Amino acid sequence: MPVPLQIRLMTASDFDAVWPILRGVVQARETYAWDPEMDRAEGWRLWAALPRATYVAERDGVILGSYYIKLNAGGPGDHVCNAGYIVAPEARGQGVAGALCAHSLAAARRMGFAAMQFNAVVASNHVAVRLWRKHGFIIVGTVPGAYRHATLGRVDCHIMYRPLDDLPEQTGK
Amino acid sequence: MPVPLQIRLMTASDFDAVWPILRGVVQARETYAWDPEMDRAEGWRLWAALPRATYVAERDGVILGSYYIKLNAGGPGDHVCNAGYIVAPEARGQGVAGALCAHSLAAARRMGFAAMQFNAVVASNHVAVRLWRKHGFIIVGTVPGAYRHATLGRVDCHIMYRPLDDLPEQTGK
Repeated sequence: MPVPLQIRLMTASDFDAVWPILRGVVQARETYAWDPEMDRAEGWRLWAALPRATYVAERDGVILGSYYIKLNAGGPGDHVCNAGYIVAPEARGQGVAGALCAHSLAAARRMGFAAMQFNAVVASNHVAVRLWRKHGFIIVGTVPGAYRHATLGRVDCHIMYRPLDDLPEQTGK
Repeated sequence: MPVPLQIRLMTASDFDAVWPILRGVVQARETYAWDPEMDRAEGWRLWAALPRATYVAERDGVILGSYYIKLNAGGPGDHVCNAGYIVAPEARGQGVAGALCAHSLAAARRMGFAAMQFNAVVASNHVAVRLWRKHGFIIVGTVPGAYRHATLGRVDCHIMYRPLDDLPEQTGK
């Protein structure tokens, strides 16, 4: 029987497993608009300290992916959250990202957010664009050439958006 | 003869004049998605510490407005900058914002940026939308209801974008 994927809050010691995944993703320069040379401290700041919450997905005690939820803007924009997802190379194509996305939508709604927004989905990342669409996101805009892809050069970035009002809200904001 | 507007880099002591303008703008909850209750230290962080450069516009020794330029994203997105502008209430309608915008475009290009992006232009701020269009920005996307306006409730936010390649680049990036 396959061992199920478990998604739970990240602990500080989990970051030992998350950081190599995150470092690999930013160094690839295919999906994240973050400094590919960033060190572990900056990774911790972006992935754990700034966000409202960070989760990991593990199977059989092995961390396969992670996501964070944070405010997308402040003050009069703080009803909209942002999230980011990473999956370990050896775990891709197994539905981990989709499971993380579904979990994040429910978690964001429980936190009281009204919508989730992605600010820079690299347009050449067709797998991600398709997956976010499947999870209810729509492309609300496209910024021309906003990402310098490692192998493709300048590619567009999509802004993607999903209202959360179809999901159960358990706590007020 | 009218005294010309001078635009120059902000000094630390200039922030004594900039902060009340900034505080008034965020407290109005009509244009910025920043915490309206933020204190001066947070204002300094957002307006002076994080940005690449911050300028003030003054006339006859009185500071009438200010703008910052910062990275809009990191790593593979760091060829795109972001800017924010504020004008003192008593100086509105005098072309200060337009002068700041024109100055910022030239400054951003000199810094080597390829484009400027605004992430959340509140759609009800018709004066700003019209002004940015006049300065070459186009709306590349609109996020539904992303801003809780003080009097209008939920209003849309535009993402606006302008390539800078029509302007002289004086330094490489």
